[in-house]
Amino acid sequence: MVYLNGEFVPKHNAYVHVMDRGFLFGDGVYEVIPVYSGKIFRLDEHLKRLQNSLHSVQINNPYSTQQWHQILHQLLDYSSTSNQSLYLQISRGADVCRKHSFDTLTPTVFIESNPLTPKTKPELETGYRAISQADFRWQRCDIKSTSLLANIMYAQHAKQHQVEEVILHRDQQITEGATSNVFIVKDDTLFTHPTSEHILSGITRDLVLESARYCQLSIQETAFSLADLLSADEVWLSSSTREIMPIIDVDGHSINHGILGKYWSQVYDYYQDLKHA
Amino acid sequence: MVYLNGEFVPKHNAYVHVMDRGFLFGDGVYEVIPVYSGKIFRLDEHLKRLQNSLHSVQINNPYSTQQWHQILHQLLDYSSTSNQSLYLQISRGADVCRKHSFDTLTPTVFIESNPLTPKTKPELETGYRAISQADFRWQRCDIKSTSLLANIMYAQHAKQHQVEEVILHRDQQITEGATSNVFIVKDDTLFTHPTSEHILSGITRDLVLESARYCQLSIQETAFSLADLLSADEVWLSSSTREIMPIIDVDGHSINHGILGKYWSQVYDYYQDLKHA
Repeated sequence: MVYLNGEFVPKHNAYVHVMDRGFLFGDGVYEVIPVYSGKIFRLDEHLKRLQNSLHSVQINNPYSTQQWHQILHQLLDYSSTSNQSLYLQISRGADVCRKHSFDTLTPTVFIESNPLTPKTKPELETGYRAISQADFRWQRCDIKSTSLLANIMYAQHAKQHQVEEVILHRDQQITEGATSNVFIVKDDTLFTHPTSEHILSGITRDLVLESARYCQLSIQETAFSLADLLSADEVWLSSSTREIMPIIDVDGHSINHGILGKYWSQVYDYYQDLKHA
Repeated sequence: MVYLNGEFVPKHNAYVHVMDRGFLFGDGVYEVIPVYSGKIFRLDEHLKRLQNSLHSVQINNPYSTQQWHQILHQLLDYSSTSNQSLYLQISRGADVCRKHSFDTLTPTVFIESNPLTPKTKPELETGYRAISQADFRWQRCDIKSTSLLANIMYAQHAKQHQVEEVILHRDQQITEGATSNVFIVKDDTLFTHPTSEHILSGITRDLVLESARYCQLSIQETAFSLADLLSADEVWLSSSTREIMPIIDVDGHSINHGILGKYWSQVYDYYQDLKHA
């Protein structure tokens, strides 16, 4: 079952009108929220970011926080899997005719949930590979919008090159991954790009910083270059579904001779504790 | 009636699945094609640009040129209006589950046609207003994609400021309008941004250049600044539905003291001849 505009319907019956601005213009925003042991993880933070995205594009939030809680839990009740990934999307809604500018419409709300199997620690410890590319996305990456064609192109590029992620750089500085935030550790300090219009302020990003602080890592929210990344002691990606993933090869260059640094394991363990707190 | 995936259906019955990547990701491309006196204007140029967009995002063109001709004419047969605007959109299609990377899917094809009433010459002669903004779109504006949220934000900004268009500048140079190409005339020379990944290579843009050449204007496909634009003799916008539109005020500054220059009228007249050639 999926949720669509006030109803729970079988996924194969879930259709939107062709005049939906989500279909015509990518005119919508979304969130991906993990569920661990039946509990929605950091829901209020996700709903707050959703509200920020909606506000940025002038879509009215159709539901109160209480209504969101209720709808999401109702949807989860249809499934018996305890770890899930909730996807929720709000588009501006369907208009009578196609025009770029908009009037106030009834937003289209679509939510689905799918089983989530995070990678295990032994799986993550094998290390993953990434490649770098120039960041040609728009300059409002702080909005979690469904106009995602640039991200699609990067994801396909990663798939075609059999790597986990494309790490992006703009004006000589690493911004983030196409579907993740990027961190490096150098000399006992954790670096990540500061929040700005060039990156998405990830919920997991914040949790990585919280975990790193607990593990006595110094934190610098400062941009760094591709050269800095290649010579780092550790490189990590974070996202709701990847959690914290160690990268040991970028563009064919080994990070720290391909050996995982000492901090990833500690930070990963603390993050696991947070998930089940 | 609209066309959707091989069928002609009433518009109110035209629905796409929520897993359509056009809805989830803005993962599609489109064209807007004018029809004058029942004849589709510059169809082959539009189909060629469509093919370029499809190729850039790795979507297979579902139809041959001959099939496109046939489908578009069949759709036009449902209407008795002789001037129309065809909208056609191809999304990558619906997948089983949501993931950024893609496999080969059956593209979703949606086409509709609406009556088109171009502005008359006396209407255009009143002149229009525009405002300028930094170009925060992605850097593949040569792809006519449905990931249009940036353009939506500009269009709404224009509407809220009661102007016709937002003229965009990147790195101190005018690229194009949010839904148009931009031209200036200075000292008997017509300037417009060269084709690149920062602008859409407009079909109407090419026709404006063809018309200007006929009217003995020198042509420079060279980028120019906002200061150049504000001190120009003439400023025009072009798009399939606007045709060639004179702008007499940008950011509250009058262009040429608010008086239309001598070239617009000549180029406009030649363009009208092309439409009915």
